[in-house]
Amino acid sequence: MSDDALTELRQRADRLDAEHVATDRRDAFELPEGVTYLDGNSLGALSLAARDALRDAVDRQWGRQLIRAWNESRWWTAPERVGDRIAELVGAPAGSIVVGDSTTVSLYKAVYAAARLRADDSRRVVLTDPDSFPTDVHVTRGVCDQLGLTLELVHPTEAASRLEGSNDVLLAAYSHVDYRTGELWDLAAITRAAHDAGALACWDLCHSAGVVDVDLAGGGADFAVGCGYKYLSGGPGAPAFLYVAPAHLPRFTNPILGWNGHATPFAMSPEHVPAEGITRARVGTPPVLGIVALEGALTAYDGLSVGDVRARSLSLTGFFLDCLDLLGIDLPVATPREDTRRGSQVSLRHPDAYAVVQALIARGVIGDFREPDIVRLGFAPLYLSHGDVLDAATALREVLVGEEFARPEHRRRDLVT
Amino acid sequence: MSDDALTELRQRADRLDAEHVATDRRDAFELPEGVTYLDGNSLGALSLAARDALRDAVDRQWGRQLIRAWNESRWWTAPERVGDRIAELVGAPAGSIVVGDSTTVSLYKAVYAAARLRADDSRRVVLTDPDSFPTDVHVTRGVCDQLGLTLELVHPTEAASRLEGSNDVLLAAYSHVDYRTGELWDLAAITRAAHDAGALACWDLCHSAGVVDVDLAGGGADFAVGCGYKYLSGGPGAPAFLYVAPAHLPRFTNPILGWNGHATPFAMSPEHVPAEGITRARVGTPPVLGIVALEGALTAYDGLSVGDVRARSLSLTGFFLDCLDLLGIDLPVATPREDTRRGSQVSLRHPDAYAVVQALIARGVIGDFREPDIVRLGFAPLYLSHGDVLDAATALREVLVGEEFARPEHRRRDLVT
Repeated sequence: MSDDALTELRQRADRLDAEHVATDRRDAFELPEGVTYLDGNSLGALSLAARDALRDAVDRQWGRQLIRAWNESRWWTAPERVGDRIAELVGAPAGSIVVGDSTTVSLYKAVYAAARLRADDSRRVVLTDPDSFPTDVHVTRGVCDQLGLTLELVHPTEAASRLEGSNDVLLAAYSHVDYRTGELWDLAAITRAAHDAGALACWDLCHSAGVVDVDLAGGGADFAVGCGYKYLSGGPGAPAFLYVAPAHLPRFTNPILGWNGHATPFAMSPEHVPAEGITRARVGTPPVLGIVALEGALTAYDGLSVGDVRARSLSLTGFFLDCLDLLGIDLPVATPREDTRRGSQVSLRHPDAYAVVQALIARGVIGDFREPDIVRLGFAPLYLSHGDVLDAATALREVLVGEEFARPEHRRRDLVT
Repeated sequence: MSDDALTELRQRADRLDAEHVATDRRDAFELPEGVTYLDGNSLGALSLAARDALRDAVDRQWGRQLIRAWNESRWWTAPERVGDRIAELVGAPAGSIVVGDSTTVSLYKAVYAAARLRADDSRRVVLTDPDSFPTDVHVTRGVCDQLGLTLELVHPTEAASRLEGSNDVLLAAYSHVDYRTGELWDLAAITRAAHDAGALACWDLCHSAGVVDVDLAGGGADFAVGCGYKYLSGGPGAPAFLYVAPAHLPRFTNPILGWNGHATPFAMSPEHVPAEGITRARVGTPPVLGIVALEGALTAYDGLSVGDVRARSLSLTGFFLDCLDLLGIDLPVATPREDTRRGSQVSLRHPDAYAVVQALIARGVIGDFREPDIVRLGFAPLYLSHGDVLDAATALREVLVGEEFARPEHRRRDLVT
């Protein structure tokens, strides 16, 4: 391509960055020099506020308040407090979200509770997406096996027709965004189809929370879970969140009965009396350090509307798609080009996808590989600019044009891909 | 009492501290000036190595290695690696312990797996201690309800006779140390009684790991769980550990099927194939920050034998009991005086126990209250000295003699007691 075309793209990037300056939170994060980080959908970048919150939690709260920090630093109520902050990002009312366990454990609780709410002699089927992140399929199948239910693997595009006119489905458990292709599914439509068939709907928001204007309440979702360490930048292994629609809370049955979900935990009674509200979804002592870090990270959203963040995200991914076209990168794009069907990532297919990702990393552009042939590039909107997007696209062009992916050093697989 | 008696006690404290100098790890912890911390059995004191490990994990690993830290900083294998370090403290072989979820979730997995191993038409009964920490009773009852089993509340002193000659029990699930009284139960004897009756044994080591010379393998325990944030000082809400006897691993059924317990997690297969070994007990993405902090904290045990730590612990609690006698503190002692029956705490009964604890805290001696009438004083051996023990005893004497517990400000209850 000509230098002129590149100059024009650079000018466009600058113009778009100026347009979206209100959602630029780059100063809230630390990223190494020379790195363009397109893996915030796997591990969000270091949040400076998370780091500071963690230091305070360790040095002052743990170190000096000691056991008193449970009251003085409000550790005990942190799962609900941080849940309320996340609720603002995913269109949920206060008191409907709790954080603490992993996504998988949270989903186990959601699917189990849904089944207990709705399973009867005629309703024995749970639908889920065979292309969901595997843990979703595993944990859902596990609950079905435990309760004698049938798991049916139905792609999201077929979910509505499978549900229509049926009366055997009790739950449709879907991911909001396909973790590989980045396709955004219609939460409201699938939820409506489930409800019309008398079923419940459970959503995995791992790849939409914080970047898509999720509307759990408006969409009628019954249950949802989501991850704290991807776009929310809560840190490695950050606690996940669990949403239970308020209408279901009085009959929410937690399969893992622990003291943190008890109505009066410090009465130390051997009888389990579930707490009112979302607290009954808690289990054991919460991972305080992880929750505190997540709470710090969420301050990056202070003063922002998630709608504006979504607009920035779409602008970034849309600009990247344009760059692919204008730079002549003609890899098959697995991600829908329509805004309404796209999460916050762009996935490309390449037969040597793993090596392409490694070659990009060697150029300072960090994305990741997903089986079997996906180059996955996530665009965390709070700390990426349109300039970064252009840098990534030009690096990808170099990798492909120079066939850098063919070098042997880019083919060595690590334990974690 | 006379000044002479106090002087003599002080000399004895100094002599005992000199005798046990090899297990003094006070320098590995930070405690506020003027505080005698007798609540390390609820939240262990700040470990400096945990703090440093966490800083490195945040600033360098998360901040600069970013997603690459899963390989470069060995985050992925941390649950098993830290499990192996804990195994050395509780007499378990390498490859039998994993860390990650909360104690309650870990116990849920253990009880469920035990039931799946052993429940049949004739064995439908699970025994547990009505006086166990409530979460143990709740989660065990929950599994029983799910699987149609019967929970029988049988005190540890009655467990052997309940088991003898029976053939209906599938699991005896007990706590190694009573969290209120500090009584240490005979793990090997109860396990033997369970095995003689064809049942399995599961142990909660929350109040013994790191302070009692637990011998899981020698005692024949089938399953065990324990806490990372008490004597192990992993930090608030630190991940718990789960032990599965190697003989049971091939048939261990995890009720919560997640991608971290999969044989080939990065193949991203929708079929769940359990990993070999203890890895199959993993569930979701592990709480990396919490595990890293715990790994740091465990370095306090480097170069120590747990037998020597146990000897120091018994010396501390034994000296405290002597101080009570010699200082004329005649509260009923809930904790056994025999070394073989005592964990690492001393619990006293007082009708105003809550206020007594608050009055002690006002004097800088931090213990805790447990319903209904327990003043609970934990002696974390690594950072407490016999001098601290004497300070605590003299403070207690002042609180009682001066009736300081009668002051109104000591009766106000906080959320977390």
